[in-house]
Amino acid sequence: MTQLKGACIFGQSGGPTSVINASAAGVFQEALKQDCITAVYGAAHGIKGVLNEQLYDISKEDPYELELLKTTPSSALGSVRYKLKDLDEDDTDFKKILEVFKKYNVRYFFYNGGNDSMDTCYKISKYMQKVGYECRVMGVPKTIDNDLWGTDHCPGYGSAAKYIATSIMEIYHDAKVYDRGMVTILEIMGRNAGWLTAASVLAAYKGYGPDLIYLPEVPFDIDKFIEEVTKIYKKNNNCIVAVSEGIKDKDGKYISEYGSDLAKSKDAFGHAQLGGLAATLANFVKQKTGAKVRGIEFSLLQRCAAHLGSLTDVNEAYMAGQAAVQNAVQGITDKMVAFERAEGPEYKCNIKLIDLAEVANKEKKVPLEWITNDGTWISEKFIDYAMPLIQGESRPPMVEGLPRFAKLKKVLVSK
Amino acid sequence: MTQLKGACIFGQSGGPTSVINASAAGVFQEALKQDCITAVYGAAHGIKGVLNEQLYDISKEDPYELELLKTTPSSALGSVRYKLKDLDEDDTDFKKILEVFKKYNVRYFFYNGGNDSMDTCYKISKYMQKVGYECRVMGVPKTIDNDLWGTDHCPGYGSAAKYIATSIMEIYHDAKVYDRGMVTILEIMGRNAGWLTAASVLAAYKGYGPDLIYLPEVPFDIDKFIEEVTKIYKKNNNCIVAVSEGIKDKDGKYISEYGSDLAKSKDAFGHAQLGGLAATLANFVKQKTGAKVRGIEFSLLQRCAAHLGSLTDVNEAYMAGQAAVQNAVQGITDKMVAFERAEGPEYKCNIKLIDLAEVANKEKKVPLEWITNDGTWISEKFIDYAMPLIQGESRPPMVEGLPRFAKLKKVLVSK
Repeated sequence: MTQLKGACIFGQSGGPTSVINASAAGVFQEALKQDCITAVYGAAHGIKGVLNEQLYDISKEDPYELELLKTTPSSALGSVRYKLKDLDEDDTDFKKILEVFKKYNVRYFFYNGGNDSMDTCYKISKYMQKVGYECRVMGVPKTIDNDLWGTDHCPGYGSAAKYIATSIMEIYHDAKVYDRGMVTILEIMGRNAGWLTAASVLAAYKGYGPDLIYLPEVPFDIDKFIEEVTKIYKKNNNCIVAVSEGIKDKDGKYISEYGSDLAKSKDAFGHAQLGGLAATLANFVKQKTGAKVRGIEFSLLQRCAAHLGSLTDVNEAYMAGQAAVQNAVQGITDKMVAFERAEGPEYKCNIKLIDLAEVANKEKKVPLEWITNDGTWISEKFIDYAMPLIQGESRPPMVEGLPRFAKLKKVLVSK
Repeated sequence: MTQLKGACIFGQSGGPTSVINASAAGVFQEALKQDCITAVYGAAHGIKGVLNEQLYDISKEDPYELELLKTTPSSALGSVRYKLKDLDEDDTDFKKILEVFKKYNVRYFFYNGGNDSMDTCYKISKYMQKVGYECRVMGVPKTIDNDLWGTDHCPGYGSAAKYIATSIMEIYHDAKVYDRGMVTILEIMGRNAGWLTAASVLAAYKGYGPDLIYLPEVPFDIDKFIEEVTKIYKKNNNCIVAVSEGIKDKDGKYISEYGSDLAKSKDAFGHAQLGGLAATLANFVKQKTGAKVRGIEFSLLQRCAAHLGSLTDVNEAYMAGQAAVQNAVQGITDKMVAFERAEGPEYKCNIKLIDLAEVANKEKKVPLEWITNDGTWISEKFIDYAMPLIQGESRPPMVEGLPRFAKLKKVLVSK
């Protein structure tokens, strides 16, 4: 093991989750303890904060506020969606990053995010190796979408799944309260992978779930959908449907675009901006069945509801941040911290490390064999998989009846 | 005091809340203790359950499940929106109700609901007096809208307000996470009264609230709105707006109808079915400012989120049910249970009784002097009013990481 002395930078990237700051707490508290880490910096808005030299000095923060990060949603340092160009195409950003790393003697770089962020991480690592600048680069996983390759599950998913399942159980009670008919369409996040929408089956497992579940893994047929909804509605005078925002027809067209005349803008990674699916399907069902229909979009709530966090998820998110620092200090680089489920009847989550090269830009989808009943239901294998991830209750301390979130001073390091 | 021996019926009516079942628990547990109450019935779907003789025998329920009603959202007996005709117009329903009351020797009738339900309650009471059938009729208040006349506040409001304030605090963190600009439009329930939307100021009081708040009490001017949003957006590169679903322009037209070509259906009480306001305003702001805009509708979640209940609200809802029974047994009739705030620095809520005739069909709106800054903000007086109502944490017992709600057997009384 080489003792490498220098500063560390931690950055948060991509869509926030309700536990991403728990990973930040893990990185910060661990890094502040390590002798070889001479300074702990938080990058404002991820890699942009490195490029712009906007670095917060974390040693200036109150330890109690760092502790509160465990139950503070969203990205406390600010997030970013910024794609680094390929190195052979344009090395401007890389040169700037190297300059900043040299200036502040940054020898540890921790980056917290999903697929796209692991790509950023991987490119930086490769560049530093190429130019011979010794720096340990570690990815910390994060995404409510649970679609990172090579890890059993992702920090952020358990809490989002718990929020979705609980909210559906509550909505179920409300949606069935009248004796007149009603169809409820629940729109859940997930562009290409249906992990979050699959979590709706946990509500059904408790007796208060949807009747139909549609994931983006299976092509969506609107006529078949109407048929299935009508059948259940006629039988029960009620029908609750959970759909992934990203469902597409067999030609790859997003269903959310069916009824919409609005031009769809694209984000920095070229992903189409989705939304409005619940309303589109609700109008469609209303026209076809004449039923009273309500479309409900969980929207941002599903990824920021720290008041209903999974304690398992919070603890694991913290552990992932901590493990990134511990391993880097031990000489490891170029890896993403990942989770591995221990064998045996009791759930236990162990840390493993996987090559950034393997993770970058890959997606892990819900296995097709877990999607049953002709694409409208989720198998028990998923329930066994997901139940351990939503266990335990995490919420911020409540002061005067409302959550007390972390307040960081965010003292910028002078340039 | 006359000792009146006989059965009681309890019914739930109107839109559910996350604490309406706490009032049911109060009525049931108290009624089961009273010697003069010979049977305790729950009406399936409110007054419809009386008309159809669909009555559940509450003595058959497990006491533990009745206790769980305190943390089970929505209306456990089923709700209804059914308006009794005026007596001189058509007395068919009243005759049927009298027949059922006589058949089961019903001498106590408790009805839980909002404005429209108090009208139902009042009409039944008047009819029973007219035909000389001795029956004590008591209204138990309920509405997330907080618009019942004659009471300091309504059971259901505190929990909805707590949910709204907490969710906005969380969304605030998410909506400000990127360094690019963003406008967020939050649509909150409230057809004519802005109490729920006003609760968004509680999030601002904690430092994580909206920039602009629009209540239905003030006519909405879309041009002024765009001006105000643009001003804040230009200054902060971000703007969060809370709007009541029921905002109308100076001619009384709902803003939610501005952008929509969909025919609006009306419910049984002749209220227009609202919804889609957030999307309408979001599209409008996008067109006018070019900003990235997200519309978020709290939808049913705000009225069924028992996982984030106000303990004060739950306890008061229970107390209201209990007080209705205790007073009826003492000889009181024709009243709605209401809340009165005790004088003094400490919050204390006392029971008072008001004539049903005074309450029926009236609405209590947010005082205009509490709406400040030219109709875009809420004064501190509201904060003083609302803060005590959201205090304390109530949530259902969690089993396997998910809420355990009451499971009633719902044993129908044989006709």
